[in-house]
Amino acid sequence: MKIYGDINSGNCLKVKWVCDRLALPYEWVAIDTLKQETRTPEFLKLNDAGQVPAVAFDDGRTLAQSNAIIRYLARGSDLIPSDAFAQAKMDEWLFWEQYSHEPYIAVCRFQMFYLGKPASDLDPDKVKRGYAALAKMERQLAVTPHLAGPTVSLADVSLLAYTRLAHEGGFHLDGYAAVRRWIGETEKFLGLPPAR
Amino acid sequence: MKIYGDINSGNCLKVKWVCDRLALPYEWVAIDTLKQETRTPEFLKLNDAGQVPAVAFDDGRTLAQSNAIIRYLARGSDLIPSDAFAQAKMDEWLFWEQYSHEPYIAVCRFQMFYLGKPASDLDPDKVKRGYAALAKMERQLAVTPHLAGPTVSLADVSLLAYTRLAHEGGFHLDGYAAVRRWIGETEKFLGLPPAR
Repeated sequence: MKIYGDINSGNCLKVKWVCDRLALPYEWVAIDTLKQETRTPEFLKLNDAGQVPAVAFDDGRTLAQSNAIIRYLARGSDLIPSDAFAQAKMDEWLFWEQYSHEPYIAVCRFQMFYLGKPASDLDPDKVKRGYAALAKMERQLAVTPHLAGPTVSLADVSLLAYTRLAHEGGFHLDGYAAVRRWIGETEKFLGLPPAR
Repeated sequence: MKIYGDINSGNCLKVKWVCDRLALPYEWVAIDTLKQETRTPEFLKLNDAGQVPAVAFDDGRTLAQSNAIIRYLARGSDLIPSDAFAQAKMDEWLFWEQYSHEPYIAVCRFQMFYLGKPASDLDPDKVKRGYAALAKMERQLAVTPHLAGPTVSLADVSLLAYTRLAHEGGFHLDGYAAVRRWIGETEKFLGLPPAR
């Protein structure tokens, strides 16, 4: 399996982390999104949405969307709860991540980290919605150790990707003790060095 | 089961359609998002993200995120492919819908339909990205009858929600023959009257 990804992209790292955790063999193919390498005819054959990550299996089949990829790769593993309702709660976090977390926290981080924009130039609405996302996580993690049940699931892997980098998007986690505790524990679970 | 939803919201209708198709009993609790009914203390107990749809089961458990809800309710039915890779392709469409389709097509439609904004005042970037989403669907539906395999799946149900209402957001489907064909067929499958 080949993973086409940008090593600075949280969405791409989700796939790498799941493969590493589950000891799934892969070849990492570096794609530089800033150099428009997701817009080449070759790449668009892999994923016509022009987004990383995308994976190509040895038989030629391809799959895109970070959360769909990790859901497929982790099937049958302990990263997906076997109970149907617990799995649904995991999915609730995965879909929420793409709609209500990534577009604010990852986008602010992209603008500061990649484009060099100062925090003071960020869209205030994006910042506000990013903090609302962090607050929702804090409420959950103040009462449960992980996002979607008694053990680490793909919900934690997926949300970790940009939450651990939120400071690179100008977000301060000082008031989010449970989120900070969870970041450290989830990084440790995945064998990652602390992001900050 | 109670479905808390707004009957004009495509995201909410996805849940209704799946229940109706699978003959799952439910009580519809009307929530008016424009009247901020998703921001009341009672509603935030159901879904602290303050979004519809949300469902509450008879035992008190709750679930949010339209695509997570339909994925849970349709488990074991023919709306979810049994093959693991076909299921992953369905998930790819579901996550893509929330990230690359709904924020453009549904948001433009919201601004015109709910807020009365003229098409000429829409954000040109949102319009461009909405058409890019329609173009991706057209490419798929020009070669396969449904989005994620040989039969109708949740990918079709989910994408139908706002694609059939795209004209209410100022989008013209004249150049999208396969999408138009698919809208009619999926509406028929779900027993819906044509949206236009």
